[in-house]
Amino acid sequence: MAKIVECVPNFSEGCNQEIIDAITAEVKKVEGVTLLNVQSDASHNRTVVTFIGEPSAVKQAAFASCAKATELIDMEKHHGEHPRIGATDVIPFIPVSEVTIEECIELANELGKEIAEKLNVPVYMYEAAAKKPERIKLPDVRKGQYEGLKAEIGKPERQPDYGPAHMHPTAGATVVGARQFLIAYNINLSTSDVKIAKKIANTIREAKGGYKYCRAMGIMIEERNMAQVTINMVNYEGTPLHRVFETVKSEAARYGVNVIGSEIVGLMPMQALVDTAEFYLRLEDFDRKQVMEENI
Amino acid sequence: MAKIVECVPNFSEGCNQEIIDAITAEVKKVEGVTLLNVQSDASHNRTVVTFIGEPSAVKQAAFASCAKATELIDMEKHHGEHPRIGATDVIPFIPVSEVTIEECIELANELGKEIAEKLNVPVYMYEAAAKKPERIKLPDVRKGQYEGLKAEIGKPERQPDYGPAHMHPTAGATVVGARQFLIAYNINLSTSDVKIAKKIANTIREAKGGYKYCRAMGIMIEERNMAQVTINMVNYEGTPLHRVFETVKSEAARYGVNVIGSEIVGLMPMQALVDTAEFYLRLEDFDRKQVMEENI
Repeated sequence: MAKIVECVPNFSEGCNQEIIDAITAEVKKVEGVTLLNVQSDASHNRTVVTFIGEPSAVKQAAFASCAKATELIDMEKHHGEHPRIGATDVIPFIPVSEVTIEECIELANELGKEIAEKLNVPVYMYEAAAKKPERIKLPDVRKGQYEGLKAEIGKPERQPDYGPAHMHPTAGATVVGARQFLIAYNINLSTSDVKIAKKIANTIREAKGGYKYCRAMGIMIEERNMAQVTINMVNYEGTPLHRVFETVKSEAARYGVNVIGSEIVGLMPMQALVDTAEFYLRLEDFDRKQVMEENI
Repeated sequence: MAKIVECVPNFSEGCNQEIIDAITAEVKKVEGVTLLNVQSDASHNRTVVTFIGEPSAVKQAAFASCAKATELIDMEKHHGEHPRIGATDVIPFIPVSEVTIEECIELANELGKEIAEKLNVPVYMYEAAAKKPERIKLPDVRKGQYEGLKAEIGKPERQPDYGPAHMHPTAGATVVGARQFLIAYNINLSTSDVKIAKKIANTIREAKGGYKYCRAMGIMIEERNMAQVTINMVNYEGTPLHRVFETVKSEAARYGVNVIGSEIVGLMPMQALVDTAEFYLRLEDFDRKQVMEENI
């Protein structure tokens, strides 16, 4: 059973394939790291890279790709629809298996220091790794974007957490942090009345008095003529899948509506499966090591 | 996502640690194989070895350990309480991940042939790999044990499936086969009346009209003053955990009894967790590759 961390750096280049390849090549070079996905968007002029592996290898790959982006991307010439402050815009670490959020915060701080010291890029810590409450949310850290931060970085309130209080001449600044794994989860209803999905979404979302780690909306899936509660589970350990599922089922019943299915969009950690089985089968003293595949 | 097979050979030596170590050393030598457990019983004079890995590596480890047992164990001198016909008494292959029972049957046949040809040991195929219906069950193949089979092996009905129609002078004969993974599963009841557990066990066991792949008994757990339905799930894909759990819950309700918990004893394949989550969360189009850990 290995410690596994996920890292999802966002780079400010979504068009030049040579540069994108040079950055991802740095990730592929690192032993013990698996590159899961590379997603480039030309209008955003941005590439999101996803990789996983053992913590120190993941940190090494994060630094190497950031160093390459610092070398190849010139923020003075960058245009794109997506907000950004640097060549390597943001690097979150996410616990996947046998790793705590605290370990990811430490990893983020180590990387932040390394980027500041070796690349001379100012670094801001965000989310669970934030050093100030006003830097928890990424949009707050990124306020004014590259151009605005360049003008304001000398001000005390915009001082970086690591590195110089001035932008890197071409690479700008970088945000580094740690956050929980986000599970994109949809629950499908036996109704075409989107109002019911919206009402149910309101019962589970934090903003309306629902679950703390639940973001939800009611939407219409036109091709199935079906209303859906679409959910971001931003901390599946704090608010587990089964609790949200059961609440939606119970709230739907109040309108005479059934849950006809649910969908996990993209990836999720195995622990979420274990938690689900533990709840429904009322498992006593279950240990993940009892899963055969965990012993290899 | 790798193909994983489990192999659980039983060797007719449970006392001499040097011989046991020499046999397990053969397993450890093979790259890509993980030795999970070695369990020796002196009164049975028998050792059960459990290892997993990629199919061809597992077959290689099975052959190497069998060859070592053939070299070191003398059945002419063997005494023990457990029925046995050879130095390597039985070798089952069990699908764990991304492997079908058919692939395990093929693996068993390849190994059976190899043992017969290279070690000159007669081999009988059993369970899912049986070539005759009267050889499906292990006790039937092992009838008369080493001594009895030695006298009868010349008879047409006891002809081995591979190898010579006479015993190896010191290693006897071997049984090779393929079977499904067995999950040992207990369901705990909110009653100290064992009769209720026995009645519920009868509703789920195949022998009494219950589920095809379910062996069950009602027993008393004295230290918790609690009745329990103890179950062997002999094919968790044919009869899944959740179905048995839900049936026990429903049958218990008929006596005003609740299920207070359940226990997985020992190991189980990850697929059983996936199946459980799929059922209870009513997952649509879920793919195991969506589990992060499956991508490493």
